Amino acid sequence: MTTIAIVGLGVVGGSFAKALKKYPQAGERVLAIDPDEETLQTALSEGMIDYGETANETILQQADLVIIGLYPRALKDFIIKHRNDFKKGAILTDVAGVKGVLVEQLKAEIPEHVDFIYGHPMAGRENRGYAYSDADVFEGANYLLTPTADNQPENIEWLEQLIKRIGFKRVTIVQPEKHDEMIAFTSQLCHVIAVSLINSDDPNRDTVKFIGDSYRDLTRIAKINDSLWSELFIENKDELLAAVEGFEKQFQLMKQAIQEDNVDELANMFKESTKRRTQLEQADRKQKAE
Amino acid sequence: MTTIAIVGLGVVGGSFAKALKKYPQAGERVLAIDPDEETLQTALSEGMIDYGETANETILQQADLVIIGLYPRALKDFIIKHRNDFKKGAILTDVAGVKGVLVEQLKAEIPEHVDFIYGHPMAGRENRGYAYSDADVFEGANYLLTPTADNQPENIEWLEQLIKRIGFKRVTIVQPEKHDEMIAFTSQLCHVIAVSLINSDDPNRDTVKFIGDSYRDLTRIAKINDSLWSELFIENKDELLAAVEGFEKQFQLMKQAIQEDNVDELANMFKESTKRRTQLEQADRKQKAE
Repeated sequence: MTTIAIVGLGVVGGSFAKALKKYPQAGERVLAIDPDEETLQTALSEGMIDYGETANETILQQADLVIIGLYPRALKDFIIKHRNDFKKGAILTDVAGVKGVLVEQLKAEIPEHVDFIYGHPMAGRENRGYAYSDADVFEGANYLLTPTADNQPENIEWLEQLIKRIGFKRVTIVQPEKHDEMIAFTSQLCHVIAVSLINSDDPNRDTVKFIGDSYRDLTRIAKINDSLWSELFIENKDELLAAVEGFEKQFQLMKQAIQEDNVDELANMFKESTKRRTQLEQADRKQKAE
Repeated sequence: MTTIAIVGLGVVGGSFAKALKKYPQAGERVLAIDPDEETLQTALSEGMIDYGETANETILQQADLVIIGLYPRALKDFIIKHRNDFKKGAILTDVAGVKGVLVEQLKAEIPEHVDFIYGHPMAGRENRGYAYSDADVFEGANYLLTPTADNQPENIEWLEQLIKRIGFKRVTIVQPEKHDEMIAFTSQLCHVIAVSLINSDDPNRDTVKFIGDSYRDLTRIAKINDSLWSELFIENKDELLAAVEGFEKQFQLMKQAIQEDNVDELANMFKESTKRRTQLEQADRKQKAE
């Protein structure tokens, strides 16, 4: 019997519950802790969890794996509060989108009798809450694990298998610092751009009549969980600013080419971006075919 | 009998052929002019056109409507070359993504016996060629018409009906200058951003392992037709630079808030962008439900 506890049945925690039930394993139970009684009842009635509690009473004491779907700050508070509630030998994991500072700060707080393996599912939704959770967002997606020297190799391997079982395609093991550098570019910078783009519109224009899929795609993530992302940005400040400046440099080069009617330079930039995007698609396709 | 000629069976022209056959009307024929014999044969065998020529011989002489799916410069050349070939009373329309300069330049070239109604389907694909054409990209999309004082109101209305028949949801009548101002923001600026984003990556990093849907969505249009878009950018230079500068201002404000750890300011920006994006989705949904 394997008991999995999900802490926080939000959009990510809820998707874990749904994905575990979509790809179930004999003798596996999914329990959840969420302050919202109604959310627990919904998840129970949908068969996505087997049991729930609004605050931990008995769940953490039984759980072999605890998936903590909380924001970075709430995660720290949770670990500190429940340090004596976790089962001996339990594997703990998180889903936070920033790692370096977090690993540093939590180092002293993790009880010795558990194995905390930091993780980051690269799949989410711009809407929050269990109602928007969906097993399908995990399908074919990337997962990053940032183990520390304290982790047991067999536990990392076990977690990796579980992640792949529930739909993720590629699990990458990476240093926390490398994680933060890459996420600053592939995720956080994208959010800075999307927010800046939509906020630069003149609200007195009837913009909706003039949009195509380009604008729709580039602003999708401008719908953003403000408390979570303010935390993430500040916790990863240095890496994010480096990514911001790298983007600014390219943006300035393109602006200059437009100002100077430099058609050749523009065409070169377009050829380069087309090449890179095509390579990205090929790598994505290759991964899905594997 | 209505005869429709499509000039250029590329991704946009091909999509017109497919959409006209998806929503056919009794007594309507679709003919095409495309230099590539193989493309014509494919379209014929798929039943998407009724007849084709690699260069005009008989088609323009019969066509009641000519949809010209060419780049701005090629469009001008085509009009000049064929000024005496168009049927008397024919309606001509284009699909170019820039209007102000084009309308000005073509003014003297349009023969008096035809009615040229400028148009811009806000739907496309980042890949070029007939193979990527698809009637479905038009489904529910926006269409912009920029009539001039020379156009006949009944012809504008007739064209509008045809556009709606083949899947477009909202046809907006707009001045060429307003068109260019809006397109600079909703389309061209988005392309500047996507190209700058992907070109600011360090190609020595294994970025593909670290991406989620944010990066995929924001770089989709970085795959770009370099000759077409260099033309479009330069022809709409002033409006595009204004959009670029509006974006830069917001981007700088966000950068500053990150530098100063200004969590409140970040949260305010996120709330504003969330509000705007939510309104956009509501407007889009309302349109689709109409």
